[in-house]
Amino acid sequence: MNKYVAEAFGTFVLVFFGVGSAVLAGGDIGFTGISFAFGISVIAMAYSIGQVSGAHLNPAVSMGALVAGRIDMKDFIGYSVSQTIGAIVAAAFIYIIATGKTAGYDVAASGLGQNGWGADYLGGFGMMAAFTFEVVATAVFLVVILGVTAETGNSAMAGLVIGLTLVMIHLIGIPVTGTSVNPARSIGPALFAGPTALSQLWLFIVAPLLGGALGGFLHKARITSP
Amino acid sequence: MNKYVAEAFGTFVLVFFGVGSAVLAGGDIGFTGISFAFGISVIAMAYSIGQVSGAHLNPAVSMGALVAGRIDMKDFIGYSVSQTIGAIVAAAFIYIIATGKTAGYDVAASGLGQNGWGADYLGGFGMMAAFTFEVVATAVFLVVILGVTAETGNSAMAGLVIGLTLVMIHLIGIPVTGTSVNPARSIGPALFAGPTALSQLWLFIVAPLLGGALGGFLHKARITSP
Amino acid sequence: MNKYVAEAFGTFVLVFFGVGSAVLAGGDIGFTGISFAFGISVIAMAYSIGQVSGAHLNPAVSMGALVAGRIDMKDFIGYSVSQTIGAIVAAAFIYIIATGKTAGYDVAASGLGQNGWGADYLGGFGMMAAFTFEVVATAVFLVVILGVTAETGNSAMAGLVIGLTLVMIHLIGIPVTGTSVNPARSIGPALFAGPTALSQLWLFIVAPLLGGALGGFLHKARITSP
Amino acid sequence: MNKYVAEAFGTFVLVFFGVGSAVLAGGDIGFTGISFAFGISVIAMAYSIGQVSGAHLNPAVSMGALVAGRIDMKDFIGYSVSQTIGAIVAAAFIYIIATGKTAGYDVAASGLGQNGWGADYLGGFGMMAAFTFEVVATAVFLVVILGVTAETGNSAMAGLVIGLTLVMIHLIGIPVTGTSVNPARSIGPALFAGPTALSQLWLFIVAPLLGGALGGFLHKARITSP
Repeated sequence: MNKYVAEAFGTFVLVFFGVGSAVLAGGDIGFTGISFAFGISVIAMAYSIGQVSGAHLNPAVSMGALVAGRIDMKDFIGYSVSQTIGAIVAAAFIYIIATGKTAGYDVAASGLGQNGWGADYLGGFGMMAAFTFEVVATAVFLVVILGVTAETGNSAMAGLVIGLTLVMIHLIGIPVTGTSVNPARSIGPALFAGPTALSQLWLFIVAPLLGGALGGFLHKARITSP
Repeated sequence: MNKYVAEAFGTFVLVFFGVGSAVLAGGDIGFTGISFAFGISVIAMAYSIGQVSGAHLNPAVSMGALVAGRIDMKDFIGYSVSQTIGAIVAAAFIYIIATGKTAGYDVAASGLGQNGWGADYLGGFGMMAAFTFEVVATAVFLVVILGVTAETGNSAMAGLVIGLTLVMIHLIGIPVTGTSVNPARSIGPALFAGPTALSQLWLFIVAPLLGGALGGFLHKARITSP
Repeated sequence: MNKYVAEAFGTFVLVFFGVGSAVLAGGDIGFTGISFAFGISVIAMAYSIGQVSGAHLNPAVSMGALVAGRIDMKDFIGYSVSQTIGAIVAAAFIYIIATGKTAGYDVAASGLGQNGWGADYLGGFGMMAAFTFEVVATAVFLVVILGVTAETGNSAMAGLVIGLTLVMIHLIGIPVTGTSVNPARSIGPALFAGPTALSQLWLFIVAPLLGGALGGFLHKARITSP
Repeated sequence: MNKYVAEAFGTFVLVFFGVGSAVLAGGDIGFTGISFAFGISVIAMAYSIGQVSGAHLNPAVSMGALVAGRIDMKDFIGYSVSQTIGAIVAAAFIYIIATGKTAGYDVAASGLGQNGWGADYLGGFGMMAAFTFEVVATAVFLVVILGVTAETGNSAMAGLVIGLTLVMIHLIGIPVTGTSVNPARSIGPALFAGPTALSQLWLFIVAPLLGGALGGFLHKARITSP
């Protein structure tokens, strides 16, 4: 049971600090600052709750771990539900703080850090570009996660490497989709951000899970591992 | 006795480089640069004075360590007093350098890196938003600190992870409160910055200590630890 | 055979995230963000596919390893071909995503992250400046790579140090040449970017290979190693 | 003899990439990017030439090591001379590349990354502010260097921590003095930058050496060490 609580807590931290940095401070820290906030949240959780649950914080990571044979289907479901709950609570906390501005905060106009695509979303990329990016980025993310945790002798570095990899993925991907590679991260904010975010949510569930499974396969088939 | 001197010295470094980077270079390095200056100060101290005192540098961290049973009440008081002295000396040094500008420096107008909230403070967040953020961020900070120092096999990474976590906390929080999560860091600059900072100082003592205690409880109750 | 696949995959990651961050997000993350994307891609690959192939990801690195006696001529050729294939596939994926913008993307006008020099290229540096920079930067890169992997006791840090060194090389070099230090990274985008990039491609093959050999010599001659 | 060559080479790398990033790319990467270039150069050298010479790269570091009893007077002199030679060669390479711009480069007007103070220098700080900053920052730098290399169990992290500390020192100090904390780093560019830089050079020799000695004393007197 403890590991499900840890996953919910850890995903709360990822979404609160990652998405929250975009909503509350994005205009000041830019996409580079947001990228580091996301990645460091993973580093922080890997070294604190990592011994409890492995700190997946992400259903696509749990999917890759499932395909690679590291967890079973029961844990995949338990982890994914816990992660999604943590993400929704985090989005609620971001909403509470954002709307606590003395001048108010218009969620309908400014959003709440939701993922998306199309002419009205950040860099104006289309759906196919968004889908391609999410699959490729999540697959690479899983190759790194499964590779660095499989190697002997590097275990102390694993959390740092995985978090930095998420920094890199955000550096390239924020204009394209806001960078999901994580269905839970996408679900939380979408519930607050309104109809467009909800209508595009399917892509940020399907593509990361597909990419996560692909990364798990590349690792298990020993194409990217010894 | 040595450990109290180390805490004063270490907190001097945190406030001098963290707050000092905002006062002396903030317009150039932005909130992202300031965030790294704060976090790296913790990394630098963790690996140099860490063996002497543990490098808390922060009464809220000492509060969490007290709740988690790592230090006793006598050390909590000794550490907090030492940290506050170090922070005040650091603010004095920042004041000396800032007012050494050839064109002068108006502390009343430009402040000295004090924490705050309200319509006239950075992002214009209200008191409840400020309080909520400080409690949540400090609690997460303590969960990470207590978690990473409890795990076996990661001890070499602990200082790096804790410092990066402080980078993350600043990336999201500067527009909200200037990011305290540390009563000593707030007290030092407030003594130089004038009546508004002093009138808001209570929040940056109460909320971080509350968050620190909450983080200590989450760890000790094994909700976020094995 | 596995190591050639790993080199192709790893170089795909380097070029997709490094060059891709410039093409898809460069206006948002700036040269500092691009620098971190390049460097982190090396960190990610060093700790995941490093055990398979050593994660050279770069013919100039393989050249330095050849001169230092770490690999033989057969592997130098196999690695270089694999790396170039990975880079070309990465450039194709960047092209697919970039041209997926709803407003279209004019590769002839905006390029695809190709290296270059001259009055019309970024900082407007001349050919001799470009050549000098590429030789010096690649030689230093190899001294670091060969040195950190030769030292005992630091093996866990090697990938992090090498990746950060590539961050540093990009921080200084993007205005000068876009920073190559890697023939494969230059070949991939040049094939899509048109005649100017192709006509300047020779420099980004010759200078990095020369610098890589020089770095290998400095290490092997024990000028920069014990 | 080898260690003197290593110090010259390492200081060349520090000045070429640190100062060079300011001269060649400063307008693009900002003070945050320059700070990382300086710090990473130390990380790169610590893990490559560190086993040869200790990678001081800085007469003020060698002064602190002398006061702390880690090196003798003969090595202090040999190191300092080697470091200064490396810095001058680096400045010459920066000059060659900068003046290789197709539109030319006016060193008299744009400088070559020299340190300084006064109304016409960056943030416009006075001489006393500059002196105070350089002494404090160098003393803290030495406390970190001597502390992290003295602690057992952290040796693998030492180079990373020291380099990040130099990032922090640059984040706060570039507007104040351009950040020296290193006489060799100041001498190299000043020789090319003209009379103002040369007339202010004394401060960047005296203050860092004084700060380095102070840091060495704080460590040796066990005020900041166990």
